[in-house]
Amino acid sequence: MSFSRGAHTLTISAELFAENRRRLLAKLRKVVGARNVVLLEGGKEPYRDNTDVYDLPFRQESYFFWTFGVHESDCFGAIDIDSGKSFLFPPRLHPDFAIWMGKINPESWFVNKYKVNEVHFNDENVIFSTLKRLNTEKLLLLRAENSDSGSVLSPADFKGKDKFNVDVETLYPIIADLRVFKTDKELEVIRYANKVASDAHKAVMKHVVPGMYEYQLESLFRHECYFNGGCRHLAYTCIAATGADAAILHYGHANAPNERMFNDGDLCLMDMGPEYSCYASDITTTFPCNGKFTDKQKTIYNAVLLANRTIKQEAKPGVRWSDMHLLAEKVILTELRRAGLVVGDVDKMVKAGVGAIFMPHGLGHFLGLDVHDVGGYLADATPRATRRGLKSLRTTRTLRERMVITVEPGCYFIDTLLDSALHDPEFSQYLVPSKLNEFRGFGGVRIEDTVVIWNEGAESLSHLPRTVEEIEEFMKK
Amino acid sequence: MSFSRGAHTLTISAELFAENRRRLLAKLRKVVGARNVVLLEGGKEPYRDNTDVYDLPFRQESYFFWTFGVHESDCFGAIDIDSGKSFLFPPRLHPDFAIWMGKINPESWFVNKYKVNEVHFNDENVIFSTLKRLNTEKLLLLRAENSDSGSVLSPADFKGKDKFNVDVETLYPIIADLRVFKTDKELEVIRYANKVASDAHKAVMKHVVPGMYEYQLESLFRHECYFNGGCRHLAYTCIAATGADAAILHYGHANAPNERMFNDGDLCLMDMGPEYSCYASDITTTFPCNGKFTDKQKTIYNAVLLANRTIKQEAKPGVRWSDMHLLAEKVILTELRRAGLVVGDVDKMVKAGVGAIFMPHGLGHFLGLDVHDVGGYLADATPRATRRGLKSLRTTRTLRERMVITVEPGCYFIDTLLDSALHDPEFSQYLVPSKLNEFRGFGGVRIEDTVVIWNEGAESLSHLPRTVEEIEEFMKK
Repeated sequence: MSFSRGAHTLTISAELFAENRRRLLAKLRKVVGARNVVLLEGGKEPYRDNTDVYDLPFRQESYFFWTFGVHESDCFGAIDIDSGKSFLFPPRLHPDFAIWMGKINPESWFVNKYKVNEVHFNDENVIFSTLKRLNTEKLLLLRAENSDSGSVLSPADFKGKDKFNVDVETLYPIIADLRVFKTDKELEVIRYANKVASDAHKAVMKHVVPGMYEYQLESLFRHECYFNGGCRHLAYTCIAATGADAAILHYGHANAPNERMFNDGDLCLMDMGPEYSCYASDITTTFPCNGKFTDKQKTIYNAVLLANRTIKQEAKPGVRWSDMHLLAEKVILTELRRAGLVVGDVDKMVKAGVGAIFMPHGLGHFLGLDVHDVGGYLADATPRATRRGLKSLRTTRTLRERMVITVEPGCYFIDTLLDSALHDPEFSQYLVPSKLNEFRGFGGVRIEDTVVIWNEGAESLSHLPRTVEEIEEFMKK
Repeated sequence: MSFSRGAHTLTISAELFAENRRRLLAKLRKVVGARNVVLLEGGKEPYRDNTDVYDLPFRQESYFFWTFGVHESDCFGAIDIDSGKSFLFPPRLHPDFAIWMGKINPESWFVNKYKVNEVHFNDENVIFSTLKRLNTEKLLLLRAENSDSGSVLSPADFKGKDKFNVDVETLYPIIADLRVFKTDKELEVIRYANKVASDAHKAVMKHVVPGMYEYQLESLFRHECYFNGGCRHLAYTCIAATGADAAILHYGHANAPNERMFNDGDLCLMDMGPEYSCYASDITTTFPCNGKFTDKQKTIYNAVLLANRTIKQEAKPGVRWSDMHLLAEKVILTELRRAGLVVGDVDKMVKAGVGAIFMPHGLGHFLGLDVHDVGGYLADATPRATRRGLKSLRTTRTLRERMVITVEPGCYFIDTLLDSALHDPEFSQYLVPSKLNEFRGFGGVRIEDTVVIWNEGAESLSHLPRTVEEIEEFMKK
């Protein structure tokens, strides 16, 4: 057992990561020689600024975790392409660790827990001498640039590295693309994390009343996820937006910290998900804080729900994700036209980019160890688009089995976007100002599920009341 | 108003930070010329590894916060010694920020919120030209080395810095020492944070039952602090230790993550505290998970409680903190002798370091914007000691009014320390092995309050049932 938080939570086997390593070996053996060795450096635990405390308990770096499943900080790990053997190099702890931090586990404990072949404490030259013993001809290191943030993961560094031929190009596209396709064991964890998230979202819906503060819903959500699900970390900052705040797509961060008191009549848009053993969840619910939708709220909610359901219906192997984004725009615009907010030919509107006035974000993103998971612009991905909406897509790839992706259409009334569109003839020809003005300050609606792509269709991992009727019924006290 | 989390929480005025700046100015004007300017760089918000998400919402760097009270990331701030004027340089945000992150506030918004004299968005050369306009002769930058971790805060960096004379020595000891002495306005916030912590500790004591997991108590604590107190961040990682885990001083971190299920008869040692508007709390409670102390538990608990109360009685201006540490050791050893765990002359035991077998940590530490607050080894501090216990003291200074310090004596049964002491004649002459062995696996007791030092005596900021009788009465369902 490599991870559990007790009998009521999911137990994870080290075999999950052994399978990941086998998949990596199989791919690498096709492109590199036998005397190549993969070396990864795990995450470090930084202090808060120059203090001596931590902001949050350590959470392993995702590539390292995918490969070794190790929760401890400051480790290195290696895989010998020739023998297929795996090696772990945890730090040697000072004897006083036993007083301050807990039991010092021997190397054999790591072997048993993580099912690697050899474990050596990382004393001076241990990595170097191990690599020499393996007759390493070339070291495969990971240099990974995030395709959304541009942030770069630096290759492993250790004493003696300069004595080896180093390759920082080969490993990245292979390991990142493997992470896109989830094994059964990974799916079990992701299903669990999304189950915990679903239950916590339902608890929020049950406890919400007008007059509360947004952060109280965040607090309740975090508590439900940890207390009942064993999830200590969140996969991302909670967005607990109400009323007009729901039109701020990444609300909830430090400068917009879920601090508003909400009132009777406000919609709540809750985009929140924990992670379990580093695997993410991602769910958004939208509901009225008083349990009863107004007609205006129903109109927008049902437009977004139709888009959500249409995409979940259409998302299957062979379909390109950017086409799904355009389809979602089309569904929403069709419904907005029916409600009188826009006029004209819907296909022309989609082409002109009118959809992005109402949904400026991408339709969804891969999910795995990172909530915005890697690999979105590898393989058959088309280059990142430049027009609003499409340019925010975190992947443009063709869907295939075992991809895990979020389906999160939304419709928002964002003053800055409405204002500039109403002043631009290319857009204003499709807009009905008087009707749109009725929705100023409305906020927005997002309905997000995480799904697994299968040949038989998309499997949704959230379990929630979703129709207007289901939500109103569920929220009845 | 610079900070609030609603009507049921504390409202903080920007005047708190204006007063801090006035105190800093008064000190600096005695030692530097008029054409000196202080420049500080605020905290940045790093991604989790190379992803595009954040582990935790941004929390301002403490020195910057003390000076300007600003919650936003990526700012600079300056104080002109000559005029006393203060300047804030927030980042200029991309217009799309309004879509993704929220309203873009103008410079005037920052002036109003933070009561600084001038605010300029940090466009290229803005800092440089402002400093030139002030005829800056010398720039006072902050290079701060943490006296516990050795971690260093780097001086502010900006374009054109090389055109100025820079001094990174003068500012640190002055600002760090000012942080040691709390103003009334700061004390109000620290009292509030400790009040929230007290209430949350009481909620944990009310809800605990044998068969729960340690992290469920952590989860409940976090929820109470956030939901009722508006505290989104913790001041440090929760230590929710039970049974033998309570002997691990910094239990609760990633490799010992409060994961144990506790059973009837176990003691709970809960060392947990939130922060409010960056000001910390720090409280430890110890209680039996079933609500009823055993005789053995009472013995150790009462020894520690006596030490806690003795120190709170004795802690006053003019007393050196390292002497308080030795007094706490003496009280605990006296009680352990009474209970038959040690034998011999208590003063000799203290001198020999026997106390540190049972309390290897320091008696307490300054608290403020950091839970282990700065300045512990400035002014009249004696050099850090080398023997166990004393060497872990985060300050050796003489107490003075307005210092805020934790009083946290403890008594633990740590196998590795007991084993080595029993094999060392210098220690073993005082130990009663048969009696000590009865306490193997007992865990430990810590009773921690945060106090303010006044001439009239120490003011305790925690409000909790503390005697055996009070706890048993409080925990009765």
